[in-house]
Amino acid sequence: MDWTLDPTSRLGIIAGGGHLPILLAQACQSMHCPYFVIGIESFARPSDFDDCESAWVTFGQVGHVLELLKEKSCTSVVMAGEVRRPDFRSLKLDWKGAKLLPKILNAARGGDDALLSLLIKTFEEEGLNVIGADDVISGLLIPAGNLGKYGPSLEDFQDIKRAMDVTAALGSLDIGQAAVVCHQLVLAVEAVEGTDAMLARCLDISTDLRGTPDNRRGVLVKTPKPGQERRVDLPTIGVQTVERAAVVGLSGIALAADGALIIHRDDVIRTADAAGLFVTGI
Amino acid sequence: MDWTLDPTSRLGIIAGGGHLPILLAQACQSMHCPYFVIGIESFARPSDFDDCESAWVTFGQVGHVLELLKEKSCTSVVMAGEVRRPDFRSLKLDWKGAKLLPKILNAARGGDDALLSLLIKTFEEEGLNVIGADDVISGLLIPAGNLGKYGPSLEDFQDIKRAMDVTAALGSLDIGQAAVVCHQLVLAVEAVEGTDAMLARCLDISTDLRGTPDNRRGVLVKTPKPGQERRVDLPTIGVQTVERAAVVGLSGIALAADGALIIHRDDVIRTADAAGLFVTGI
Repeated sequence: MDWTLDPTSRLGIIAGGGHLPILLAQACQSMHCPYFVIGIESFARPSDFDDCESAWVTFGQVGHVLELLKEKSCTSVVMAGEVRRPDFRSLKLDWKGAKLLPKILNAARGGDDALLSLLIKTFEEEGLNVIGADDVISGLLIPAGNLGKYGPSLEDFQDIKRAMDVTAALGSLDIGQAAVVCHQLVLAVEAVEGTDAMLARCLDISTDLRGTPDNRRGVLVKTPKPGQERRVDLPTIGVQTVERAAVVGLSGIALAADGALIIHRDDVIRTADAAGLFVTGI
Repeated sequence: MDWTLDPTSRLGIIAGGGHLPILLAQACQSMHCPYFVIGIESFARPSDFDDCESAWVTFGQVGHVLELLKEKSCTSVVMAGEVRRPDFRSLKLDWKGAKLLPKILNAARGGDDALLSLLIKTFEEEGLNVIGADDVISGLLIPAGNLGKYGPSLEDFQDIKRAMDVTAALGSLDIGQAAVVCHQLVLAVEAVEGTDAMLARCLDISTDLRGTPDNRRGVLVKTPKPGQERRVDLPTIGVQTVERAAVVGLSGIALAADGALIIHRDDVIRTADAAGLFVTGI
C-alpha cells in the first residue's frame, strides 16, 4: 500500500462499469487520499462520478490515459469495473494505442488475461505503480469460511469440488471464471456472457435438474484463472449475484478465499442470510 | 454390422427425442430388417412411430426394457435420440432398475458418459449386442473435409483449433460437447442446455464480438468427449443446427471427422450452401 505514503501524488482510478470504481473513489474520499478518475466511456457512468475530478476516454486511447495520469500527478493507478473487450477493427487508437496495436492483437489471441497483463506492463514501463482494488479497500477480498449464517452441506461441498475442477479448466483456457453445478451435474459454464447472464439462463433448466427457492441445491463457484493477474479482473460478486443465485434455487456461492472480491459485503451477507444461501471462501 | 446376419432376430431401437430414432426405423423398413421400437416416454413422440411395432417405457424401467427385448427376439439393440438425465430421487424404478440403483447413482456422479456406459454394460451382460446408429445407417458419420461448397478460411481454422481445445477440456470433465469461438474469443460453452439453446443465446452477445449474416465469422465446434462411448451420444447436428448457426452469424460448423452424426445430410448441405456456411469434418 505504498501508494498512500506520498501525499503529493494521486491515485489514478481507471473506471469501468459497476460499483467497484465508485467504491474506490468513496474510499479515497473517506481516507482523504487525493485521486483522479479516468472513466471509460460506455462502461462507467459519468453521473456516478459527478463529485469527483475526472476525465473520460474511449478504448484505444492508451496514450491519452498516460498523459492524463502524468498531468494529474498520479504515481499509482488502479483499474476496476467491468469492461468488455473491444472490437479491434473498429477501435479508434491514439499514438500510443497504435504503437501497441501489434502487441495488443497478439495478446488478444491469448485472451483477456494476456490483454490485461500487457496493459499493466505498459503502465509499469511508464513508471506507474499498478495496484489492486483490494490494496485500496480493506475487507474486499473474501476470507476463508462462511460470510453469513449459512454454510455448505456435505453435498454442497461435493458440488463445490466439481465446480472448482470446472472453473480451473475454464480458467486455464481463459474462457471464464464461473460455473454452476447441481448434484454433480454441470448446469452452466460462463464464457463472455458474464455471471449474471449465466445465472439467468439457469431458470430455463428443468427443476428436475436444479433446485428451487423452496428446496435449494447446487452451487455457483467463481475462481480466478490459474496464474491470473490479480491486480485486475478478480472474480467479483455483489448483492445482485446473490439475488440471482437465490432465484434459480442454488444452495449458495463459493469463492476462492483471497481470490475474489465482495462488493458491499454487509448487504451481500444480509441478502444471503435472508434468502437462506451460503456465501463461503474456500 | 453382424446384426443384419440373423434374419430371425430383430433390432431393438431404444428411442429418445429428435429425428435419429425415426431415421433408424425408416432405415430398417427400407432394408426389410425386422425391428422393434421401445420409446422413452416424454422424449420420443408416439405419433412418430405410428406405423412401427412399439412399446413405451419410462426412465428407470430397465427390467421392462430387457423383458421387451427378449420377448420380441431382439438380439441387437441401438440407443438413439435425445434424453435428459432423470431426477434420480423421483425416479420410478422397476426390479432391475432398483437392483442397478447404487451403480446408477455412482455412475451419475461421473457424468452422462459413465451412465451410458453402465447401461450398455448391463445390456451386454444380458447377452445383447449393442450397436451404434452409424452401424445401421451408412453415411451418418461426417467424413473428413467439407460437406458443401464452402470451407473454413485460415481465420476459421484458427477458431476451430481454439474451439477444439475448449471442447476437449469440456469433454474430459464430462461437461458438454460444443463451443462457439469467434476470433479466438470463446463466446459460449455448452453444459446441460444443449447446442440449440447455446446457439440461441449467442444472439444476446454484442455484434462487436460475433459475426452477422452479412459478415460471417466464428465457428461452432462439436466433438465427442475423449474416451466417449461411441455407440451412443455422439455429437449430432441437423438442419436446425445449421439454421441457428446461420442466424447468429457464424462462418460455419466443424465436427470431428468420424466423430459426429449428420441427420438428413442432403438437407443440411442444402441449408448450409444457401446460407453461405461451411460444414466440415476435421
